Amino acid sequence: MSPTDLHMVVPAGGSGTRLWPLSRAANPKFLHALTGTDRSLLQATFDRLVPLCSAQRLLLVTGTAHATSVARQLPELPERNILVEPFARDSCAAIALAAAVIQRRSPGAVMASFAADHLITDVPAFHEVVGHAVDGAADGRLMTIGITPTRPETGYGYLRCSEPARPGVRQTVLEFREKPTAEVAAEYVASGSYLWNASMFLWRTDVFLAELAARRPDVHEPVTAIAAAWDSDRRETVLADLWPTVPKVAVEYAVMEPAAAQGKVATVPGDFGWHDIGDFETLGALLGRDVDGARVVDVSPDQAPVLVVDGDGVIAVPCAPRVIATLGVRDLIVVDTADAVLVCRRDRAQDIKKLTELLRDRGYAAHV
Amino acid sequence: MSPTDLHMVVPAGGSGTRLWPLSRAANPKFLHALTGTDRSLLQATFDRLVPLCSAQRLLLVTGTAHATSVARQLPELPERNILVEPFARDSCAAIALAAAVIQRRSPGAVMASFAADHLITDVPAFHEVVGHAVDGAADGRLMTIGITPTRPETGYGYLRCSEPARPGVRQTVLEFREKPTAEVAAEYVASGSYLWNASMFLWRTDVFLAELAARRPDVHEPVTAIAAAWDSDRRETVLADLWPTVPKVAVEYAVMEPAAAQGKVATVPGDFGWHDIGDFETLGALLGRDVDGARVVDVSPDQAPVLVVDGDGVIAVPCAPRVIATLGVRDLIVVDTADAVLVCRRDRAQDIKKLTELLRDRGYAAHV
Repeated sequence: MSPTDLHMVVPAGGSGTRLWPLSRAANPKFLHALTGTDRSLLQATFDRLVPLCSAQRLLLVTGTAHATSVARQLPELPERNILVEPFARDSCAAIALAAAVIQRRSPGAVMASFAADHLITDVPAFHEVVGHAVDGAADGRLMTIGITPTRPETGYGYLRCSEPARPGVRQTVLEFREKPTAEVAAEYVASGSYLWNASMFLWRTDVFLAELAARRPDVHEPVTAIAAAWDSDRRETVLADLWPTVPKVAVEYAVMEPAAAQGKVATVPGDFGWHDIGDFETLGALLGRDVDGARVVDVSPDQAPVLVVDGDGVIAVPCAPRVIATLGVRDLIVVDTADAVLVCRRDRAQDIKKLTELLRDRGYAAHV
Repeated sequence: MSPTDLHMVVPAGGSGTRLWPLSRAANPKFLHALTGTDRSLLQATFDRLVPLCSAQRLLLVTGTAHATSVARQLPELPERNILVEPFARDSCAAIALAAAVIQRRSPGAVMASFAADHLITDVPAFHEVVGHAVDGAADGRLMTIGITPTRPETGYGYLRCSEPARPGVRQTVLEFREKPTAEVAAEYVASGSYLWNASMFLWRTDVFLAELAARRPDVHEPVTAIAAAWDSDRRETVLADLWPTVPKVAVEYAVMEPAAAQGKVATVPGDFGWHDIGDFETLGALLGRDVDGARVVDVSPDQAPVLVVDGDGVIAVPCAPRVIATLGVRDLIVVDTADAVLVCRRDRAQDIKKLTELLRDRGYAAHV
C-alpha cells in the first residue's frame, strides 16, 4: 500500500484533569510542550505521523475551544483538515466523523487514528509497526496497535490476544478489557497475552462504516449525513441539526468490543517507547531532571529556579517565571502556574479531579 | 509631663527573613498590612503613637531602600522627621541619631522608641504603660517597657527584674539576657521576674547621650556631629564623611546592658497584647481564618481562593490573585507571591533564612 492511500486521524480532545493546573479545559495537555523539546504533544504527534501520509491526508478532530490553538500550532495543516465538533460527543462520534469525511474524499482509503497527547520515543519502530497494521487494515480487518506492557498498570484498558504477543506479528484480539485491579493487571502482564489499549485504530473507512452501520445506526446515520454536507455550504445547518442527536459513546464500546467478539479485530503488538502523559508521576519520571531532592519538569523556557532544601521525592513543575522554594518537605507535587498553585501529596495525585470539581462548585470554573 | 514634651522614634529596618517570600529586603514586613486591617504594621504603629506626641514629634529612622515607601505610607509625617540612614549601622546608631537630632531640636526632651513591625491589640493599656514609663524617663532613668511573657518563648531576649513583675509598677532591671534555651525560658517564665525585651526604650535625650558618650564615644562622637549638621546644608557632606565610621552595635549591648549593671535601667511591665509578627506560625495564629483544614492569612484584598482537600495544619498565605490548592497535605506552610512560592514544613519555618541565602548564592538576590 502506498503512503498516498493512507489517511491519518488525530482526535484532539480531553482536558487532562490529572495534570491540573498545568492542563486546563481551555488549554489541555496536547497543546503543551510535554515532549522534552519545544514541540507540543500535538505537534510531536503531527511530526510523527506526517511522514506516513503528508499533511494533506492528516485530519484533526477537535472542539470549538481548541480549534484556533490547533490551527496556530500546526500551520502546515490545511484548514479543511481540521474538523471542529460543535461540542464533544465522545470518541465514536469523533472517529466516525473523520472516517465518513475521508470515505467521501477518498473512498475505500485506509485510515489510522492516534491520540494527540501520547509520547513515543522510538519513532522508526512506531512507523514499522504502523506499516504492519496498515497491511492488516488493507486486508479488511479492524486493526489496533496494542502496546507491550512494561508494568502491571491499572490506569489503562487491555486487549486480550489469542496467543502470547510477539512484536510486529499480527494476531486476533479476543476481547477488550476495562482497567483492571492491581492483582488482575499483574496476571495480565505475566500471561504475555495482554496488551495495553492505547486507542490506536486502523481500518478501511468502508469496512469501519459498515460495522458502525450494522451496530450503531444511531451514530452512523447522522454522522454520514453530516459528512455528506461537510465539504459544502450546508455543513453548518446539517451539523446544527444532527450533531446534537449523535449518542455519546466510546468507539471501543460501540464497535470494537462487539467486533472483537466476532473475530473481526486484530492487533500488531508495538514496543516503541509509548507513554500516556497522564499524570505528574509520569511527567516527572519521563521529562524531569534531578535538582537537589526534586524532579523538576521544565515546561516553559523562562522559569526562575526551583530550590529544594532538605527535601526528598519532590516533583516540581514550574510553568511560570517564579521561584519555587521548598524546605523540609518530601513526596510532594508542586505545580506553579500563572493563576493557580497546586501542592499535592504524591500518593494522592489520582484525586486531583476532586480539586477541579471543588473549584467548579465554588464558582472558579475559569481556573479549571 | 505634657504630651508636647514627648518625642517618639520609630526605627524601621530589618527585612523579616523568616517571613520570606512575603517579606523582602526591598519590601519588608513593616510595609505589609499584617494587622488584620488594611493598615500596614508601620501605619498601625504610627496610629498608635501619634496620639501621644503628634506627627510633628514623631521621628522615623529608615534606610535608603524604604524612604519613599515610608513617606507614601505616612503622608501626615513631616519630611524632616524621616531620617534616612545611608546604610544600616545597627540599632545603636539609628537610635543615637534620633536622640541627637531630638536633643538639638528640643533639648532635654523625653524620647520613646518603638519598633515599626510589632502588633499591639490593647492600645489604651499600651498608652497607660507608656505614661508610667515616661514618668520614669523624666526622672532621669533609662526606661524600657518589658512584656509580660505568655509562654516560654526562645525567640526573644529577656529582662531580669529585681522582683516579680507587677503590671504598671516601675522596678529596676538587673540584667539583659540573650535568647534562652527552652528549659531556661521555662524557668524564666515560672519565676515571674523575667520580662520579654521588645526593644521599647524611653529616656531623656540628654541622659541617654551622656551614657553613650561615657560608654561608646566611637558612636557618640560621629553621631552628634552628624546631628549638628542634620538640619543644615552640610548634612550630606557630614553624613558621607562620618556615617561609615559609626560602629555596628546593638543599643542593648552598647548602652543598656552596662547601664543595667550599674542600676540605671528601670522597666514598667506591659501586658497589652504585644506581638512580634516574626514568622508564619504567629501570622497564622493571630491573623488567620479557618478554611477547611487550613489557617488562611489574607494579606491582600484580591486573592483567589485557598482550597484544602483532606488537609490538616496548613498555613496558607496568598499574596497574589492566584488559586492555592492543596491535596492530602498536613503541617505545611504555603506562601504564594507574585514572583516566588514557598512550600515549607511547619517545624522547619525557622530555617527559611537558608532559602534566602541559597537564592543569593545562586544569583537570585532580587527575589530575597
